[in-house]
Amino acid sequence: MDKLEVNLDYFARQQCSIQWGAFLAAFAGEFGEQIPVGELRVLMARLGKSMAENMPMPAGNTIAELAESINDVWFEMNWGRVDLVEKEDGLFVEHHLAPLQGAFGDEALAWSPAILEGIYAHWFSAMGASSALQLTQVEPVLPDSLLIVFRFGRAA
Amino acid sequence: MDKLEVNLDYFARQQCSIQWGAFLAAFAGEFGEQIPVGELRVLMARLGKSMAENMPMPAGNTIAELAESINDVWFEMNWGRVDLVEKEDGLFVEHHLAPLQGAFGDEALAWSPAILEGIYAHWFSAMGASSALQLTQVEPVLPDSLLIVFRFGRAA
Amino acid sequence: MDKLEVNLDYFARQQCSIQWGAFLAAFAGEFGEQIPVGELRVLMARLGKSMAENMPMPAGNTIAELAESINDVWFEMNWGRVDLVEKEDGLFVEHHLAPLQGAFGDEALAWSPAILEGIYAHWFSAMGASSALQLTQVEPVLPDSLLIVFRFGRAA
Amino acid sequence: MDKLEVNLDYFARQQCSIQWGAFLAAFAGEFGEQIPVGELRVLMARLGKSMAENMPMPAGNTIAELAESINDVWFEMNWGRVDLVEKEDGLFVEHHLAPLQGAFGDEALAWSPAILEGIYAHWFSAMGASSALQLTQVEPVLPDSLLIVFRFGRAA
Repeated sequence: MDKLEVNLDYFARQQCSIQWGAFLAAFAGEFGEQIPVGELRVLMARLGKSMAENMPMPAGNTIAELAESINDVWFEMNWGRVDLVEKEDGLFVEHHLAPLQGAFGDEALAWSPAILEGIYAHWFSAMGASSALQLTQVEPVLPDSLLIVFRFGRAA
Repeated sequence: MDKLEVNLDYFARQQCSIQWGAFLAAFAGEFGEQIPVGELRVLMARLGKSMAENMPMPAGNTIAELAESINDVWFEMNWGRVDLVEKEDGLFVEHHLAPLQGAFGDEALAWSPAILEGIYAHWFSAMGASSALQLTQVEPVLPDSLLIVFRFGRAA
Repeated sequence: MDKLEVNLDYFARQQCSIQWGAFLAAFAGEFGEQIPVGELRVLMARLGKSMAENMPMPAGNTIAELAESINDVWFEMNWGRVDLVEKEDGLFVEHHLAPLQGAFGDEALAWSPAILEGIYAHWFSAMGASSALQLTQVEPVLPDSLLIVFRFGRAA
Repeated sequence: MDKLEVNLDYFARQQCSIQWGAFLAAFAGEFGEQIPVGELRVLMARLGKSMAENMPMPAGNTIAELAESINDVWFEMNWGRVDLVEKEDGLFVEHHLAPLQGAFGDEALAWSPAILEGIYAHWFSAMGASSALQLTQVEPVLPDSLLIVFRFGRAA
């Protein structure tokens, strides 16, 4: 790791709340062992949707404003930050520095990002996006990257 | 509420980590609705045991030393504090100020304390307590009391 | 201490940020030893005024609304909570659970509350209160009370 | 800023405790305006020494062990991390991610690092280092670098 990476690693270890770290790690161990990844993703997405219903609802007239509004929500919760990038095949949601890895561990990266998927899907739906558009995670997540990417667009 | 109670309520609202509050509330809503209380208690106790395996192990030659050692662990995690009280019918574990209510809500008090039950049971077992002794929660938990009591002793 | 008081004491020890506790204690030791209390109060009130200029400005059409708005600011910062009580000889600002004692220590209670004095004075002034009205601390502060009282009214 | 730098910036803004941010910024504004930098550095170094007297004392039989022990202290306080680098002209103390900039601001970087200087000097002295060796900051601190470097060795 070079200096910048070591520094990021320091902050990532600081990020996850000491209060709930042990519980969330136990949750990941227990559920990760007993429930198939596909079902875990469905469960996590449902928890994400339920979280979103009780979180502030972001808003904005442009993609840039929306990104800023979303980042206000994430910063308040210390859940990292997002870049929204428009491309030909959809809107890419690039979420950096989510506390998911610190909380649930490296192995859980196969399913823990579905929490974010549930939250973003709820937000786009509540903003009136067409139901023909879907949010899907762009694989894979690299443990070192602290970056999770979703594509919001028509099914491929 | 008198002044002291209002003050306690203030701190109790501050206590639960902002980072995970929304997730834990969603967890409580989803699981509390779909899984019977008895099964939820079993699940929570298992998560507690799993947490304890990755937490520091308290120790002490006397009940007072043990209580102090346990309280060091809880203080570090901001999980409240405990009084250990010896009575005729067992050792009473009086846990104050657990963040369970702030995290999982009032209704979940029917099952969320089983996390603590799992942790304490693991500790007593690891200290070599006889398997004839059991840890059971002394009902009921009053939402305003911020107090959860367990009895460790022979089955009644 | 009875149970409620022990519980409050637990939370009070949790309240002061670990990150700055050592610095603020050193500040209190150094300044408390070298600067007379009267001058320290002037300095602290000036720091409070300066803080208030960069904090959200509370507002409200009634005393109750104002108290609620102020409490939103304090809760966000984890600086405790306030009751505003109208009496014949002025408006009493009863500030509970300020982190001053945890940060600066018991001895510093002779001067640390002047930070709050500077903040409240700035707010009342910015709201257009007559300059004939003054904010003064009602003595004494008891270390165990976690309560600091100011009177806002005409000079006695 | 590239991605890594944006991520570091995010964490740096999260790092400074919300509870004391406003006070420390007011402190920096008031003192920075009224006291010459040289005197401020002396004051800050004295506060650092006083902090160190109430902090855990690091230890180690090798430079690597010492660095690890120091980093345990800093991690617990969320004060960043250190690399200790031996060179021909002394031991270089490279402190990354101190919360000083977030707390006191960019301008205060001319004097706020003297807190660290006071702490490290106290530690080296308490470990029995020769009084012929001095700790001096290697200038300058770049606001974007989140890196503060000291040299511990004979006066140049």
